[in-house]
Formats: sequence, structure tokens, C-alpha cells
Amino acid sequence: MPDGQIINLLLVEDNPQDLMLAQRALRKAGLDHRTHVARDGVEALDFVFCNGPFAGRNVAAELRVILLDLKLPKIDGLEVLRRIKEDARTRIIPVVVLTSSREQRDVAEAYRLGINSYIVKPVNYELYAEAVRDLGLYWLRLNQPPKVEE
Amino acid sequence: MPDGQIINLLLVEDNPQDLMLAQRALRKAGLDHRTHVARDGVEALDFVFCNGPFAGRNVAAELRVILLDLKLPKIDGLEVLRRIKEDARTRIIPVVVLTSSREQRDVAEAYRLGINSYIVKPVNYELYAEAVRDLGLYWLRLNQPPKVEE
Repeated sequence: MPDGQIINLLLVEDNPQDLMLAQRALRKAGLDHRTHVARDGVEALDFVFCNGPFAGRNVAAELRVILLDLKLPKIDGLEVLRRIKEDARTRIIPVVVLTSSREQRDVAEAYRLGINSYIVKPVNYELYAEAVRDLGLYWLRLNQPPKVEE
Repeated sequence: MPDGQIINLLLVEDNPQDLMLAQRALRKAGLDHRTHVARDGVEALDFVFCNGPFAGRNVAAELRVILLDLKLPKIDGLEVLRRIKEDARTRIIPVVVLTSSREQRDVAEAYRLGINSYIVKPVNYELYAEAVRDLGLYWLRLNQPPKVEE
């Protein structure tokens, strides 16, 4: 992450193939230039709360959306979500769960914890890339983020 | 509303022209057949909480998204939002604010109250129709609703 660059998309994904496809889909839609990738739950939380290697970030810095996988190493996605949504500084950041799980238990718990949206990863690669593009366009272009840009 | 029909989109809008354009955009995208329209805040809350003319509805019935204008007669949109998000039965229903206001005070308060997404109505009619179509496709097709359909 270049020093001082404002990141507006945090992509939390540990599966290398899903990550590559997502990044390619975002790039093709012109949406990738302010993306940071976290590969496990610890790094995701460090980034969001500006700890460890991200101590120079500002918690209040513009982050338009977090795309969050649920099955993550170290700290799982639902726990990452819980910590983001229980802190007043970060609960307003839109969080979209992007996961292969369509289990009712995960869906219900994610909504209960306050996610903004839940997307089931299509198994087909092309449909998966389309879903990433569509949700990137929705959250980075159409949605008005919590902090209005001056 | 035909008896027993499951509604999955509640459109809360009092401006006749915005309403007509939104309904046309939804119809053109094939997304209008399970829509209910409420024209003020009282009717919106009656529908969501199954009171008055909607006493036959089930609060737990599938409602995939509520599109909510902010400037509404009788009870304003932020108050409607507050009541939906403070009740455990209804807080998991995705609520998208669709408004002409881009005032920081409204945006911040809506996120604080727990909206899922905030869309500023484009002033241009064609762009407004596109926005309604895109958010309809996002919430009715791409997003996984709180209750998994069996």
C-alpha cells in the first residue's frame, strides 16, 4: 500500500484463485486502484483498526466497503464482522460478506451481527467475476458512503 | 395486494413522478411483480409490522428489501428506519435509503441507525431509472436475503 494513499475497498480473501479472479474482475471494471487485500482475519482487523503494520492509517479514513470472506485463517469472518460492527468508529463501514456458504446459520448470524449485504459466491468462474464486478460497481459507484466526500 | 401473495420489495415513496419512474424501471427489468407501494411513513410501518390493513401479513414473511425515501408525509423516513432497525423481528430486513438528500447529517444519521445502503437519487430521469434498476437487480437477485428460501 503506497504511503498516504486512501484505500476505499478492503478485500478479505485467503483463497488464491478467488482472490486472483476478484482482482481481475475489479481491474477490468476500473475499480481496483484503491484496493487493499488482507489474507486472514488478523490482517483484516489490523487494517481496519490501524494496528501493527497499519498504525499509520486513520480509522476514520475513507473506506467505502469491505468484502469479507467467512472462512478465514487465524480469526474467522464472523468474528471479524462482530468486532467491526460493535465499535462505533467502524460499524458504519459497509461490510459485504462474499462467501461460498449459503448455510442458514451463517446467513442469519451475519445479518444479526449487522452486515450490509450477503453474496453467495457463484461456483461458475464467469458468474463469480460478474458478481464481483456488479458488487464493486454498486458499493464503489452507486452507494453513498457514510462520510460524504467534500 | 392480492391475498396471500408474498411481497419481496416494499417501495416507500410519496412523489408521484419518482414513483412512476421507479415502477417503470422495475417493470422493465422484470422485478415489479412482488412489489408493494407505501406512500407515507404510517403506511410503511403498518405494512412492515402487519398492522391496520396489513393485519393478515406475517412479520416474518419474505421481504428482500425496503426502498425508503426520507422526506415522507406523516412519519419521516429516518423515524421509519429507526423503528424497523430497533425491533429484532425486522432489523435484519435490508433497508436502502433512496433520497434526493445528500446532506451529511442525513447520511450519517441513516448509517448510525443501521441502514444497509444509501443511494442519492440522480436528478436526471434516465440515470434515476438506471439506479432503480441496478439496485433492484442487486437486492432482489444478487443479495442473499436474511431468510434462505428452501
